Amino acid sequence: MSLSLYDVTIPVFLRNFANLTEILKKGEAFADEKGMAHEELLGARLIEDMHPLTAQVQRASDTAKFVVVRLGQVENMPMADDEKTFADLHARIARTVEFLKSVDRASMDNREDAEVVLTTRTGSTTFTGTSYVLNFALPNFFFHVTTAYDLLRHKGVPVGKMDYLGRA
Amino acid sequence: MSLSLYDVTIPVFLRNFANLTEILKKGEAFADEKGMAHEELLGARLIEDMHPLTAQVQRASDTAKFVVVRLGQVENMPMADDEKTFADLHARIARTVEFLKSVDRASMDNREDAEVVLTTRTGSTTFTGTSYVLNFALPNFFFHVTTAYDLLRHKGVPVGKMDYLGRA
Repeated sequence: MSLSLYDVTIPVFLRNFANLTEILKKGEAFADEKGMAHEELLGARLIEDMHPLTAQVQRASDTAKFVVVRLGQVENMPMADDEKTFADLHARIARTVEFLKSVDRASMDNREDAEVVLTTRTGSTTFTGTSYVLNFALPNFFFHVTTAYDLLRHKGVPVGKMDYLGRA
Repeated sequence: MSLSLYDVTIPVFLRNFANLTEILKKGEAFADEKGMAHEELLGARLIEDMHPLTAQVQRASDTAKFVVVRLGQVENMPMADDEKTFADLHARIARTVEFLKSVDRASMDNREDAEVVLTTRTGSTTFTGTSYVLNFALPNFFFHVTTAYDLLRHKGVPVGKMDYLGRA
């Protein structure tokens, strides 16, 4: 038995979006309990020029979504990045999860050596399907999920490592 | 072509330890430039009951190391968690990298269904080799590397996403 690109991405993203959902719920409940405006958590940053909580969720969503687009060759589902509330973030995650579930496992087969070109503000990087997953998509996805957790933890939300890792 | 447990762990850990090394060097250089005591970065926490930078590096090291122990069936190399300086952290990473490089790829073959039991303060969890890698080792490794980055960023160190992801 060995692992496919699908195995190491889609189920991993689904599991961690489920964990992130529970972490966000704990954040919202904490704010309500403390009489803290939701915006204080949603807009929380670790330093002024780093993205706030809302954007961390958006980037985790995009990172997962583009694995389906680039490796599963599914048409992109644009999302507007206009989330303003915890309910909006949950809806964003739910849309992303549906998109991830819609991809056929077989459509990601034999994509290990596919050329994947990522273009950012600072230039473009060419990956293979495998290096795109291992060197970009997984590290970047966990970066944003972890930073969302770290932001809530920094603001005092009582989440713990088992919330991040998930139980079972 | 498909991926082995080795492919999705050892090279990923090696790449990200190289990135983490550069991030830590930028932290040390920033402290020196600002006349900040190294301890202010090494002991930085996002909140008082969360582990400081030094422990984030130790836990990333342990997480990677135990993949080799549990799946590669190599005897554990105990490390004392006594790092106190940036030089100590670099030495810790170097020892971990040597340990990761020492494992024979073949020793991790056919370990997908191996029973892996993780015992923590709060109980024990039983994984397969595959679920241990995908549901614990990779998420936990990236958690600690990202949190190390987040701590330095929070303290003002000019690191960016490309330092985390690595170039090339």
